[in-house]
Amino acid sequence: MTIRLAIVGLGKIARDQHLGAIAATAGIELVAVASRNAALDGIASFNDIDELLASNIEVDAVSLCTPPQGRFAQARAALLAGKHVMLEKPPGATLSEVYALEALAREKHVSLFSTWHSREAAAVEPARALLAGRTIRSVAVEWKEDVRHWHPGQAWIWEPGGLGVFDPGINALSIVTRILPEAFHLVRSDLFFPENRAAPIAAKLSFETASGVPVEAELDWRQTGPQTWDIRIDTAEGPVVLTHGGSRLTVDGEPRIVEEDQEYRNLYRHFVSLVGDSRIDADFTPLVHVSDAFMLGRRTAVEAFED
Amino acid sequence: MTIRLAIVGLGKIARDQHLGAIAATAGIELVAVASRNAALDGIASFNDIDELLASNIEVDAVSLCTPPQGRFAQARAALLAGKHVMLEKPPGATLSEVYALEALAREKHVSLFSTWHSREAAAVEPARALLAGRTIRSVAVEWKEDVRHWHPGQAWIWEPGGLGVFDPGINALSIVTRILPEAFHLVRSDLFFPENRAAPIAAKLSFETASGVPVEAELDWRQTGPQTWDIRIDTAEGPVVLTHGGSRLTVDGEPRIVEEDQEYRNLYRHFVSLVGDSRIDADFTPLVHVSDAFMLGRRTAVEAFED
Repeated sequence: MTIRLAIVGLGKIARDQHLGAIAATAGIELVAVASRNAALDGIASFNDIDELLASNIEVDAVSLCTPPQGRFAQARAALLAGKHVMLEKPPGATLSEVYALEALAREKHVSLFSTWHSREAAAVEPARALLAGRTIRSVAVEWKEDVRHWHPGQAWIWEPGGLGVFDPGINALSIVTRILPEAFHLVRSDLFFPENRAAPIAAKLSFETASGVPVEAELDWRQTGPQTWDIRIDTAEGPVVLTHGGSRLTVDGEPRIVEEDQEYRNLYRHFVSLVGDSRIDADFTPLVHVSDAFMLGRRTAVEAFED
Repeated sequence: MTIRLAIVGLGKIARDQHLGAIAATAGIELVAVASRNAALDGIASFNDIDELLASNIEVDAVSLCTPPQGRFAQARAALLAGKHVMLEKPPGATLSEVYALEALAREKHVSLFSTWHSREAAAVEPARALLAGRTIRSVAVEWKEDVRHWHPGQAWIWEPGGLGVFDPGINALSIVTRILPEAFHLVRSDLFFPENRAAPIAAKLSFETASGVPVEAELDWRQTGPQTWDIRIDTAEGPVVLTHGGSRLTVDGEPRIVEEDQEYRNLYRHFVSLVGDSRIDADFTPLVHVSDAFMLGRRTAVEAFED
């Protein structure tokens, strides 16, 4: 039976990624959109999720593509109405609210899928398999991009809950938490806030695994020119390097052939499978690390940022 | 069989509270101390936990009274050595590390007790029982004290991981998370940082329960004169008020008689019972709220603080 899906929040990420992935995925069909300022031709459109849920359009599942700050009320309404829910990353503005959503999904026996699209990048699973058999000495994450290019005029991203440079940085953390065999925790965090903004534009993080392996991360939103989304793992057997956001892999200096990225198609394929059994896939570990980075963060004011 | 206990970190809280409570509790006995700059007459004393664990002194359990920033390595060493562990509040400097400790305790089949002494204040359980049968309209927390009086010269408390005003504030959160029948999550957080310090001296927090009940909290470390540790719950049936840090209760305007506070004795009595079955009691919810308050916090610089 085909899952009847509604998208909530028809913004940039929904148009760039979700619509195409849904169309290409068997077992799921877009039947409605709830969005304040946008609609889709030929698809039932509503201003918000409450209007959608009060209508006679039948939906089985909801994919939330709105900014994280308002997502709790939307997700809660959907879960209370017995709908399966898929969350864009980051899953919410606070940990308390995403833990509450998970408890509610369990209570209502519906699926909750907290997605991390970067974990679907082509090099991630091969890297994970490879690292399971290696001795890891250190990990270095470099995640540097131009915020003006990737988030033009997105004011919410600079507001509390919008996470600033952790909006892309959490993608790196979602990969590292997947590929390393051991858990890790933060030991030092330096956050750089533009003097006119409520969210950091750069961060320097030092983690350690339980057994003491250092994991260093540099996140920066001020990089113009070539963009850097790299994770380098130094192992006793040689270096394992993921570049281009986890889509390319180099092992001991040799490039490996990896499949083409199908991040969002993989997400929707997995969601279809979760919904089939009303299963939950809600790993909030990347958001826990970001939350730790704020709690443990030492703050430095830097030059004002103007869009 | 009596539990042979070691205290790690013989500082202010250990001397003010732990030593007396241990002496007054059946089933547990202090046999060792590990502390950099302190020792106890007649008790085996070591410089740190590694020296203690390498010695031939037999201990069954360890109570960690050190500042939260260095506690992970100590707790991990104790758990790996098969010791039961009791953690002072806050349980650690990050959520990732306390989650890792819980997983390790489970793996080693030993007890982990993440304590919240304020939950043992005399009015807390009566308030919890009462509120289970009432309709709650709003909650207001006022937690205002003089940092110079309560934390004289404690530099670690102003460092990242020391939590600043959340060091006392987390006590209020530990009570509210216990007495309210519903979970809640943060919707707005304002943090006030002295311009020369890395931790907040005051915070104003707005939470909401899942069903929309507002929970407001004002934390302030700048209050001289009378100190305020109050939680007021407005219910349809009348006000329920906890004062004096949860040790006194007023219901519908009438003071209720409550027993004398035995916070730390209750903690050690509970620890003895946990260790008997190698059970875990690790509710990190108060630290999750603090972490959320930092992640969602809007920061304002205020007057420099000098000790």
